[in-house]
Amino acid sequence: MTLRAAQLKHLRNLLQIGSDEQVIAALDKIHPSDLSLLFTEIGDVQMKKLVDCLLMVKKAGETLKEIPEFLLPDILDLVASDKLALIIKRLDTDDATYLLSKVPEQRWPEILDNLDKKTRNSIERLLLYPEDSAGSVMNPHFFSVSVENTVQETVKELQKYPQRESVFYIYIVDGKRLVGVVPIRQLVIADPQTEIREMMNTSVIKVQAVSDQEEAAQIVSQYNLLASPVVNESQELLGVITVDDVIDIFEEEATEDIYNMAGLSDVDRAFTPVRVKIKKRLPWLLINLGTAFLASIVVAMFASTIERVAILAAYMPVVAGLGGNGGTQSMVVITRSIALGEMQFANAFEAVTKEALNGLFLGCIAGLIAAGIAYFVNMSPFLGIILFMSMVVNMLLAGLMGSAVPLMLKKLNLDPAVGASIFVTATTDIMGFFIFLGFAQLFIDKL
Amino acid sequence: MTLRAAQLKHLRNLLQIGSDEQVIAALDKIHPSDLSLLFTEIGDVQMKKLVDCLLMVKKAGETLKEIPEFLLPDILDLVASDKLALIIKRLDTDDATYLLSKVPEQRWPEILDNLDKKTRNSIERLLLYPEDSAGSVMNPHFFSVSVENTVQETVKELQKYPQRESVFYIYIVDGKRLVGVVPIRQLVIADPQTEIREMMNTSVIKVQAVSDQEEAAQIVSQYNLLASPVVNESQELLGVITVDDVIDIFEEEATEDIYNMAGLSDVDRAFTPVRVKIKKRLPWLLINLGTAFLASIVVAMFASTIERVAILAAYMPVVAGLGGNGGTQSMVVITRSIALGEMQFANAFEAVTKEALNGLFLGCIAGLIAAGIAYFVNMSPFLGIILFMSMVVNMLLAGLMGSAVPLMLKKLNLDPAVGASIFVTATTDIMGFFIFLGFAQLFIDKL
Repeated sequence: MTLRAAQLKHLRNLLQIGSDEQVIAALDKIHPSDLSLLFTEIGDVQMKKLVDCLLMVKKAGETLKEIPEFLLPDILDLVASDKLALIIKRLDTDDATYLLSKVPEQRWPEILDNLDKKTRNSIERLLLYPEDSAGSVMNPHFFSVSVENTVQETVKELQKYPQRESVFYIYIVDGKRLVGVVPIRQLVIADPQTEIREMMNTSVIKVQAVSDQEEAAQIVSQYNLLASPVVNESQELLGVITVDDVIDIFEEEATEDIYNMAGLSDVDRAFTPVRVKIKKRLPWLLINLGTAFLASIVVAMFASTIERVAILAAYMPVVAGLGGNGGTQSMVVITRSIALGEMQFANAFEAVTKEALNGLFLGCIAGLIAAGIAYFVNMSPFLGIILFMSMVVNMLLAGLMGSAVPLMLKKLNLDPAVGASIFVTATTDIMGFFIFLGFAQLFIDKL
Repeated sequence: MTLRAAQLKHLRNLLQIGSDEQVIAALDKIHPSDLSLLFTEIGDVQMKKLVDCLLMVKKAGETLKEIPEFLLPDILDLVASDKLALIIKRLDTDDATYLLSKVPEQRWPEILDNLDKKTRNSIERLLLYPEDSAGSVMNPHFFSVSVENTVQETVKELQKYPQRESVFYIYIVDGKRLVGVVPIRQLVIADPQTEIREMMNTSVIKVQAVSDQEEAAQIVSQYNLLASPVVNESQELLGVITVDDVIDIFEEEATEDIYNMAGLSDVDRAFTPVRVKIKKRLPWLLINLGTAFLASIVVAMFASTIERVAILAAYMPVVAGLGGNGGTQSMVVITRSIALGEMQFANAFEAVTKEALNGLFLGCIAGLIAAGIAYFVNMSPFLGIILFMSMVVNMLLAGLMGSAVPLMLKKLNLDPAVGASIFVTATTDIMGFFIFLGFAQLFIDKL
């Protein structure tokens, strides 16, 4: 057993039979991120005891914010509003706002009433920004100094600045307007009498509060920053997005990209209740049922052809299946390139051409193999020709649609992954059946 | 046109008709990350000119390392080995090693020969670590001081430390052994006479050089660090992994997760040449062709049944298609939960049960709808019953396989996404056809 696992097991026992003092002593040695793992393994009574003890060692907030988003509401339900206020008060405003957003809105007033006016105001201001905007995830507490300062004055101000807030860059303001930045390391080694104005970097990379959080994350990552200042239209400094937020944003967006392709909702995780899973997956199931029936109408149109040559039914899924696979591959490549900002290095027309050509070639290869099998197994050269032609056409179509659909959705400012996957596979199914059975009907006398 | 786009267009013109001096003046105002965008839009002659000018303003390395990995080999082919050595010398060792790894190995000796011994040694040492290990991506340059130091002595050493290396944490060593850490901010505000020993944090979170880079990234992200020290078995400090590496690692891993599910190779991007795409996608195409033919053998076994009741061919893809969708959803949820470390918050048996139950319920709903349609459209209650039964069984199977297969692959220390997707959809196709047509054959007289 690892040390961590052993510690957690020990703590779980203490929560059942130990005193508060014993639990508190044990808590002291474990990192909040590890403590958060406990919450799914204990009952409600122990959970309350754990939260109380965490509060006493001032680790409650740090621990709760490490718990996966989707488990939080049930856990926070067990915590009284005055305690929750205490927890929230000790957190950075962005984390405090995050926790609050996991509590039903009806409880907000009684929690906010337990807070001092300053904390309440800054939380309320963050709650006003649109969801997933840079403003909604920024930390409104930051360290800034006047452009009139010297290094010595700046160090003095930094000494007074609360310890728990992290500081990587010193932001320099003129009034409230952001005019420069100095990395903290420069401060350590600078002559105390130097004026900040002389050493600051004036071309500050920054994001607008109303812009999308993903855009902010991309800026921090692209320019290898540790934090990006967030400003309003008048360039007034409002807050900071730090790199740990950026990592969270990237993980969230990556999950979203994968989930969108499979028609999943982001609350659907391994530990999500079955009832929620069913509810969230039902719409996608119905859409799929709809397109599946569209495809089956196409097949039904050719029922008399299939009656005459039943082996067509066996080859039919090969044409549609390979097309679906090819289309999905093109779609994944293009949506991922869009998500990573790599489409800046390619151009849309070229990308679509490449995927279409790739589909055409792979269609030829797959078509030849399938035709060969049909020829030798069923002794039918015409079945082979039909199979070859329909696979070539369907794979070409798959490459075209798989690349063009996400790019068009992107152009329309829609999420390229949502919709693209259902549209692409529905098309390759429906068209695959139609082309294959259509050719078969044309050549029915030769089969 | 944005300022950035205008600047780049101006620069592109200068590269064609301007003097080196004009290009250099223009380069000065543009960030390396933006400059990297130029490389896909200019010809070889201009590219050489651009690299030469970038070298003169000492931005070549920073710009080249921002170019997508898959474009680099062609660009680096155009740069002479002595110039490449100059570029590499000015980069952090981890970035230098990265650039070098994009050049054919035959060129390494002549590049390394142009480097001073110290740089060469540290690059060669990095090249020895296994690919994707923490050691291979770490920066072997870091700022560390002896545990005997005072704050004042530490600040003096920091003043002498090269400007271009970033410093977030001061690592404290006893000999070479890592014994503590002090965030740089503490240094700014501490009394110069304080001993480092007194203020350092001794429980340092660190990673082993041979461990997987993903593990290192997860540690930095989980504990919200800016950097993690990398040590060997004797706890000797070897290097640092910083948060910008972590973001790159996460993006790489997210791409890998998505790509694995679609059977794509990581070199396959929007701008990848068609010839490479075809070569990389061919194996997956052949595997899919193989499973598609397995499915078609199952259908062929029931050819006489289909000949008698051709409408079965129309409903057949509905059963298989819905199963494939359900299985993919379960697989995506489980693989993503594994990737994000959330399986720690659930247990495997429970997760599989939930997906199986979800499949069962959704199978009932989809089956009822499909049965209703079959009954009203084809006036065949037995077709409806067969459709219902086979959809329930196939969706249950889809949930089971979709969740159990990635978990088993993970247990075997294999990548849960590779293999799972082909296995799951092949099963739902083959079993879907088998169950549906099998039931149909049993009740053929009622149809």
